[in-house]
Amino acid sequence: MRTDISEPELWEYRSAVEDPDGVDAFWARTLAEARAAGGEVAVRPVETPLRTLEVHDVTFPGFAGEPVRAWLRLPAPALRGGGPLPVLVEYVGYGGGRGAAEESLLWASAGFAHLQMDTRGQGSGWSRGDTPDTGTNGPQVPGVMTRGITSPETYYYRRLFTDAARAVDAVRTLDGLDPERVAVAGTSQGGGTAIAAAALVPDVAALAVEVPFLCDFPRALAITDADPFHEVTRYLATHREQVDLVMGVLAHVDGVVMARRGRAPARFSAALMDAVVPPSTVFGAFHAYGGPKEMAVYPFNGHEGGGTAEDLATLAFLRRHLGAGGV
Amino acid sequence: MRTDISEPELWEYRSAVEDPDGVDAFWARTLAEARAAGGEVAVRPVETPLRTLEVHDVTFPGFAGEPVRAWLRLPAPALRGGGPLPVLVEYVGYGGGRGAAEESLLWASAGFAHLQMDTRGQGSGWSRGDTPDTGTNGPQVPGVMTRGITSPETYYYRRLFTDAARAVDAVRTLDGLDPERVAVAGTSQGGGTAIAAAALVPDVAALAVEVPFLCDFPRALAITDADPFHEVTRYLATHREQVDLVMGVLAHVDGVVMARRGRAPARFSAALMDAVVPPSTVFGAFHAYGGPKEMAVYPFNGHEGGGTAEDLATLAFLRRHLGAGGV
Amino acid sequence: MRTDISEPELWEYRSAVEDPDGVDAFWARTLAEARAAGGEVAVRPVETPLRTLEVHDVTFPGFAGEPVRAWLRLPAPALRGGGPLPVLVEYVGYGGGRGAAEESLLWASAGFAHLQMDTRGQGSGWSRGDTPDTGTNGPQVPGVMTRGITSPETYYYRRLFTDAARAVDAVRTLDGLDPERVAVAGTSQGGGTAIAAAALVPDVAALAVEVPFLCDFPRALAITDADPFHEVTRYLATHREQVDLVMGVLAHVDGVVMARRGRAPARFSAALMDAVVPPSTVFGAFHAYGGPKEMAVYPFNGHEGGGTAEDLATLAFLRRHLGAGGV
Amino acid sequence: MRTDISEPELWEYRSAVEDPDGVDAFWARTLAEARAAGGEVAVRPVETPLRTLEVHDVTFPGFAGEPVRAWLRLPAPALRGGGPLPVLVEYVGYGGGRGAAEESLLWASAGFAHLQMDTRGQGSGWSRGDTPDTGTNGPQVPGVMTRGITSPETYYYRRLFTDAARAVDAVRTLDGLDPERVAVAGTSQGGGTAIAAAALVPDVAALAVEVPFLCDFPRALAITDADPFHEVTRYLATHREQVDLVMGVLAHVDGVVMARRGRAPARFSAALMDAVVPPSTVFGAFHAYGGPKEMAVYPFNGHEGGGTAEDLATLAFLRRHLGAGGV
Amino acid sequence: MRTDISEPELWEYRSAVEDPDGVDAFWARTLAEARAAGGEVAVRPVETPLRTLEVHDVTFPGFAGEPVRAWLRLPAPALRGGGPLPVLVEYVGYGGGRGAAEESLLWASAGFAHLQMDTRGQGSGWSRGDTPDTGTNGPQVPGVMTRGITSPETYYYRRLFTDAARAVDAVRTLDGLDPERVAVAGTSQGGGTAIAAAALVPDVAALAVEVPFLCDFPRALAITDADPFHEVTRYLATHREQVDLVMGVLAHVDGVVMARRGRAPARFSAALMDAVVPPSTVFGAFHAYGGPKEMAVYPFNGHEGGGTAEDLATLAFLRRHLGAGGV
Amino acid sequence: MRTDISEPELWEYRSAVEDPDGVDAFWARTLAEARAAGGEVAVRPVETPLRTLEVHDVTFPGFAGEPVRAWLRLPAPALRGGGPLPVLVEYVGYGGGRGAAEESLLWASAGFAHLQMDTRGQGSGWSRGDTPDTGTNGPQVPGVMTRGITSPETYYYRRLFTDAARAVDAVRTLDGLDPERVAVAGTSQGGGTAIAAAALVPDVAALAVEVPFLCDFPRALAITDADPFHEVTRYLATHREQVDLVMGVLAHVDGVVMARRGRAPARFSAALMDAVVPPSTVFGAFHAYGGPKEMAVYPFNGHEGGGTAEDLATLAFLRRHLGAGGV
Repeated sequence: MRTDISEPELWEYRSAVEDPDGVDAFWARTLAEARAAGGEVAVRPVETPLRTLEVHDVTFPGFAGEPVRAWLRLPAPALRGGGPLPVLVEYVGYGGGRGAAEESLLWASAGFAHLQMDTRGQGSGWSRGDTPDTGTNGPQVPGVMTRGITSPETYYYRRLFTDAARAVDAVRTLDGLDPERVAVAGTSQGGGTAIAAAALVPDVAALAVEVPFLCDFPRALAITDADPFHEVTRYLATHREQVDLVMGVLAHVDGVVMARRGRAPARFSAALMDAVVPPSTVFGAFHAYGGPKEMAVYPFNGHEGGGTAEDLATLAFLRRHLGAGGV
Repeated sequence: MRTDISEPELWEYRSAVEDPDGVDAFWARTLAEARAAGGEVAVRPVETPLRTLEVHDVTFPGFAGEPVRAWLRLPAPALRGGGPLPVLVEYVGYGGGRGAAEESLLWASAGFAHLQMDTRGQGSGWSRGDTPDTGTNGPQVPGVMTRGITSPETYYYRRLFTDAARAVDAVRTLDGLDPERVAVAGTSQGGGTAIAAAALVPDVAALAVEVPFLCDFPRALAITDADPFHEVTRYLATHREQVDLVMGVLAHVDGVVMARRGRAPARFSAALMDAVVPPSTVFGAFHAYGGPKEMAVYPFNGHEGGGTAEDLATLAFLRRHLGAGGV
Repeated sequence: MRTDISEPELWEYRSAVEDPDGVDAFWARTLAEARAAGGEVAVRPVETPLRTLEVHDVTFPGFAGEPVRAWLRLPAPALRGGGPLPVLVEYVGYGGGRGAAEESLLWASAGFAHLQMDTRGQGSGWSRGDTPDTGTNGPQVPGVMTRGITSPETYYYRRLFTDAARAVDAVRTLDGLDPERVAVAGTSQGGGTAIAAAALVPDVAALAVEVPFLCDFPRALAITDADPFHEVTRYLATHREQVDLVMGVLAHVDGVVMARRGRAPARFSAALMDAVVPPSTVFGAFHAYGGPKEMAVYPFNGHEGGGTAEDLATLAFLRRHLGAGGV
Repeated sequence: MRTDISEPELWEYRSAVEDPDGVDAFWARTLAEARAAGGEVAVRPVETPLRTLEVHDVTFPGFAGEPVRAWLRLPAPALRGGGPLPVLVEYVGYGGGRGAAEESLLWASAGFAHLQMDTRGQGSGWSRGDTPDTGTNGPQVPGVMTRGITSPETYYYRRLFTDAARAVDAVRTLDGLDPERVAVAGTSQGGGTAIAAAALVPDVAALAVEVPFLCDFPRALAITDADPFHEVTRYLATHREQVDLVMGVLAHVDGVVMARRGRAPARFSAALMDAVVPPSTVFGAFHAYGGPKEMAVYPFNGHEGGGTAEDLATLAFLRRHLGAGGV
Repeated sequence: MRTDISEPELWEYRSAVEDPDGVDAFWARTLAEARAAGGEVAVRPVETPLRTLEVHDVTFPGFAGEPVRAWLRLPAPALRGGGPLPVLVEYVGYGGGRGAAEESLLWASAGFAHLQMDTRGQGSGWSRGDTPDTGTNGPQVPGVMTRGITSPETYYYRRLFTDAARAVDAVRTLDGLDPERVAVAGTSQGGGTAIAAAALVPDVAALAVEVPFLCDFPRALAITDADPFHEVTRYLATHREQVDLVMGVLAHVDGVVMARRGRAPARFSAALMDAVVPPSTVFGAFHAYGGPKEMAVYPFNGHEGGGTAEDLATLAFLRRHLGAGGV
Repeated sequence: MRTDISEPELWEYRSAVEDPDGVDAFWARTLAEARAAGGEVAVRPVETPLRTLEVHDVTFPGFAGEPVRAWLRLPAPALRGGGPLPVLVEYVGYGGGRGAAEESLLWASAGFAHLQMDTRGQGSGWSRGDTPDTGTNGPQVPGVMTRGITSPETYYYRRLFTDAARAVDAVRTLDGLDPERVAVAGTSQGGGTAIAAAALVPDVAALAVEVPFLCDFPRALAITDADPFHEVTRYLATHREQVDLVMGVLAHVDGVVMARRGRAPARFSAALMDAVVPPSTVFGAFHAYGGPKEMAVYPFNGHEGGGTAEDLATLAFLRRHLGAGGV
């Protein structure tokens, strides 16, 4: 069952979300503070049973310089050519973390340096994480969607999106990786985070997002009852007088606002039977996106979206935009 | 449908939870540090449309001296006799906060000074809260059941239970309230918290708990799939290697362990069709309780338990143990 | 998720329900017969643990003079001023009854005489009742929505709405209450009943309804699958040939038809995510209402509506329209 | 999934339900009053498109002489031999009524006179009914399980079971039917009703019940959450103080108590995966049954039980006990 | 709740499904091959406890001449007049088979020869079957909706629809049945199959379908999540690249395409609250139907549709079009 | 919530399933016929974006010589040492197929030749397949659990298990793979299939199964309602008279019977909260297993079992039993 308007209508749909006042200054300041906070990028090899890949445990400075974890997976040295590797920085979906070192082998097996960033304070759901969130916890609905939601300064996604931008900064400092060929990517929350990273570090080489979450909040809240969007609904059901306040805060991280600031070549995908991320919210961000772009539509899929088929299409897209050298 | 063993079996059941090493020292140190942290008890009158009650907004120092909010509801001055009022300190259920000033009018309408303590970091679910939680947020399952669960030092309920004990300390400093006649009470999470308060401040005058949560974790996790107990299950499903660690941490706050340390006259209630708090876990705490005690059983109720009927029985119980003077 | 059309559309929406022929005569006759049937208003004090309120067990003659129960809660005598008290007559939601004497303390604590009318033949669900329904029980769907539904004469809500009107008559006879300052109010089924009471006794001083049920049946049946509206759907699924008959009977009690006959100042509220009472059905009655009116919209709430926030707004509304004297 | 104890355990299980004091006198008086109330048995031919059967609309005096409807289906005259027909009196399941004249054709097609009794006040669910219930409706849970449940005198099933016994009386007065060869039968509620009819009219020629409901209430309430048993649970959840009263009333109609009074040859069936009527409750009645008896067990069925297979086995059982003459 | 557009909109709606190229040749060839395959029609009397009907176990050659089972039910010889009987060929709903000989007695009891065709490879759900399906089983979703779906040649419904046409051929060869008065009928899948039979054997005397399934696939897949339509959705969610292929195959059996080819008088029915077969898909076929036609609408029913009421209306419709002789 | 008996009880539990008469002869004949049917093993390289692995599309002769597909994944040539590679033959879970060439990269990345066998006639659910099933399709419940279930000869799992054994035969013929070091493994249905493969080819080098399905049917059907076990229950609910027949057929493939015939070192795992595969059924097979064995228990997991943690433990187990040479 389609969960949203029809595909022809989606191509016409435009989100009504507007840029909040001062949003560029807000993010510029946030990012400047994070970069000013210093911190080292640490890379520690991990022993695994893998023979075709090597995995490193990376710690890099994220929001406010706080340490954030990631896995860096590389093809085995015998398979690496002379030049630096192209890089895929991946962000993960809601509730998960970076998982185990031995998971998520596709991207490095395809020849990329693959940095899989941990998600602060999540990572006990479908996959594990190792990075704590910081800041106090005001009254909130379980989950992170309403953590610190009464101000852009304290909102959870300010911290996560800053981590995401700083992950790009971090990989650009590492030997053997090509700082000119860094793509950002992700699925669902990871997709929304990648859009933000492409906005905050607009010179990334490519953006690839599958069924990206966190876009077009006002429409999403009106048309879906599925978590995690629904966490916000439940919060506003209790905090009835904060509707305008919360909507203003959400606009600071909304994927539609972020997409306007992206410049890299981008690939989006949406699924017409997706109840978790209604496709109109993806199209809302897609139409707003500021760089060259393409969209894949999966008419009979839910939130699983294009799955491996879309991963393979993403690999082809990345090869086109990052070049084959060194892969 | 009964969710647990039969009533005759419940009367025979004893929990297998043992006191963890050093649990008394752990709590003594925690409480000592909180008391040493200082902080003022602030009482600010609130304007409400109520004519028969007056309500005050209280802030008192809780865990580590951190400010915790509460409502203090009192009968209107014209109705108060000469002596100090007996006090009911109430803790609230999972997901809720102290709510609105105009809610929960029964206890003060019955003549008690009623302090309803806010629940740190909850309070956006069925009722609202105003008190943030502190500490970093490691990877966790949404909710508070697994926040900081890798150590007794960082576990959420260490902080909440300390708040609960300090709420008793706070009301004992207030004019017009009788420090000798302070009862602690609550339902579900509020009941588990009240058991902890009665353990940490064993000279309270009475303890009254309805379908108390947070007791007998090993049995609870084995026999119920209902949240919030199930949050722990989901955490352990992901963090498979932490089973012993987590069980050891939980024992520091388990209602069975806490109940052994209570000395005040106590009233418990359990419901035989309760899927959220299986009745054997309540009986586990009840049988372990260290003071005089009584138990009410509701054979056909779920987690709503005895409802108003049990509230009225609690009022009678409190009158017996706190005396009628000044009510 | 919004369960109905958008808020701008709701402001434009008008119900298609028309007045059935003879509806005014039908109700005039019904009410006249009830009043002619006689019967006493009995008021018996109840012993409760409450100190700030007194509660009376009231029996008054309702439909066909049949005895109907209610609680009358008053501020303690020491708090009552010289003049008569303003009165709030409240009707309760589907499945419930007047509950316990010690429940629902807000209105009397705010200074009103609060008559909480029992609901005939319900009162074993979320709260208890003490008043039987009468009349034979033809084939029906469980619940009261289709009890006697083959004729306006035998339909359940004819009896309940007559009780509601007679409750106003009853309080106007009681000492210490101000017959000029009687408001009618309720939530859900209680709201639909209050609209009917305001139609049948149009000189009440105010009407306040939260997410009122029983309005705009044809639209409601088409757009919701939630009980209790769905009881009617299930009846018509079995009794396929009675569609026109049943629709004609329902029009005699439809809140849209009733609202046209109200004259007192009125406050309505609707919730945009309400699946039990779709907001368009509330707006259908609101737009039809015959007196001065205001509407509160809760965009992120379901059938819980505005909760305490709306109760407080209702108290302010009542103070404006009933005056403060004697409260 | 088995919903109850294993089959070997079922053969050992005995119900703990005891006969309430005076139960025989209660039913003797009830039946005597019904018989004394008089009333005619009216038989009116119905025009149907059927060519192999003829159908009559029967009205007979039931509880307190109140008119009860039934269908009487007979093989077409050309197919009837010289002698009177054996009779099957059937009672129907919860929520249904006698349905349409053209439904339930098996028994008459097999050569029986088939009287299908309507169920007072039900008959708007899965099939239609035409017989109203009487008596006032105190506070109750939707459905009939708790209608009048505060006294054996007013309880719904007193009236229905009396109707059932009087249906046997009625068919025995009709020309062409053999009063010596009247069997009573039914499925689920119809089975429980048939057990009662066989107790109240112990000289019926046979009893055949499939997954009979209404047996062994205390065990049933403890082990199933399915309606209609669960209606009683919900009632007792609200009316907490009536547990003993209600259990005493239920014992007056419990199938275990009734079964002790049956004398006719009987066939029972039970399904081991039945969640609506747990098989132990059927075995409770079966083991208590006072006449010759057989039991069919369906190990992989739910409440649909043996379906047509059991109907055919019932036909064979009836042929054995009613003889073939005239069929 | 209505599951589709409103009734006025349904009367305006037209399906967008077009005839696939070569569809007539495809079916002509399929039918010719089946008829060329030969095979006998075998009729074997069955012993049953029925006295008013006789039942025969029929085997006839279906798709590719494969043996297909059916029940043939006839009024008892004593009730048959001189002339040949009119015939109703019935197809059954999804998941079921021809069931037991003693089930489904209405049509023969009303004087028709009733051939109830088994459904190949189904018949272990709500009723039993005895006919296997043939052909290999490529990767598919459980159920038959996607069996062989990659080509019109291998698709399951090619085989079933051919069986359906050959059932008409078969009854026309039997003694005592009137080959000029054969109607085809069915409910849900049986209705879709009957539409196909009326297309493939356009000289049948009448067509009667209740809530027919298998019509207007593109719309159905977009608007319902209910099985069995949803089986196709799940298949396409996995086989993302086969969307056009599968849509082309489905058009070969789509009830809209088939309906265009029917010529016999037809009766359709649709239910406005049907979530399994959305009413617009029925109207899509109805509006396309090529013969005289009538439509019954059930506004408050789900997939149970008109039930016995519609069966009786169908009997009247059949009497009008098949004549009364011999019935 | 635990779905079965406690862990201490699991260690004591023994399955009651006995070897059916002639089971060894049945399988010997089946396997001999398959081997006699001939057929080639074809290996075709697949172009993928992978750089660290190479993938081959394998077709080998399975049951009755029918072609079965598989993926063979190998470390890139530059990473392979001189000797032949150890081999892991993996079978997949219910509803899935071999998926895409670029999925399931762990085992080959860890240095194994990884043959992932397709599952005949499944493969349109959570992953895709390319291998059709054969044989006719008698009446069955959707899914494969009851396909051909009326005889061991025609039962689906006879064919699948034969494919599984023949996959081992096939890899032993391939260059560069070590025929002495072939392990069989799988999860859920893949685990049950691996147990069968280890029984049919008892000289495999190791067996590793996670939460294996298809073991101890009589107990499984009694204690779980979850599919796919429940498919059998639904079949028997309709085909009531086939209980003994079906139980006899199932015993020919039951994992308990198969396990008795295994001789290779084996690792099992079970999850105590697994509702799909109750842990007692796994222990039933484990205790019966005929070779050296170890068991991992996951107390807080459902059917996801040990996940990556267990995969890593399996890799260590395989290294111990297959040796490190050539990996």
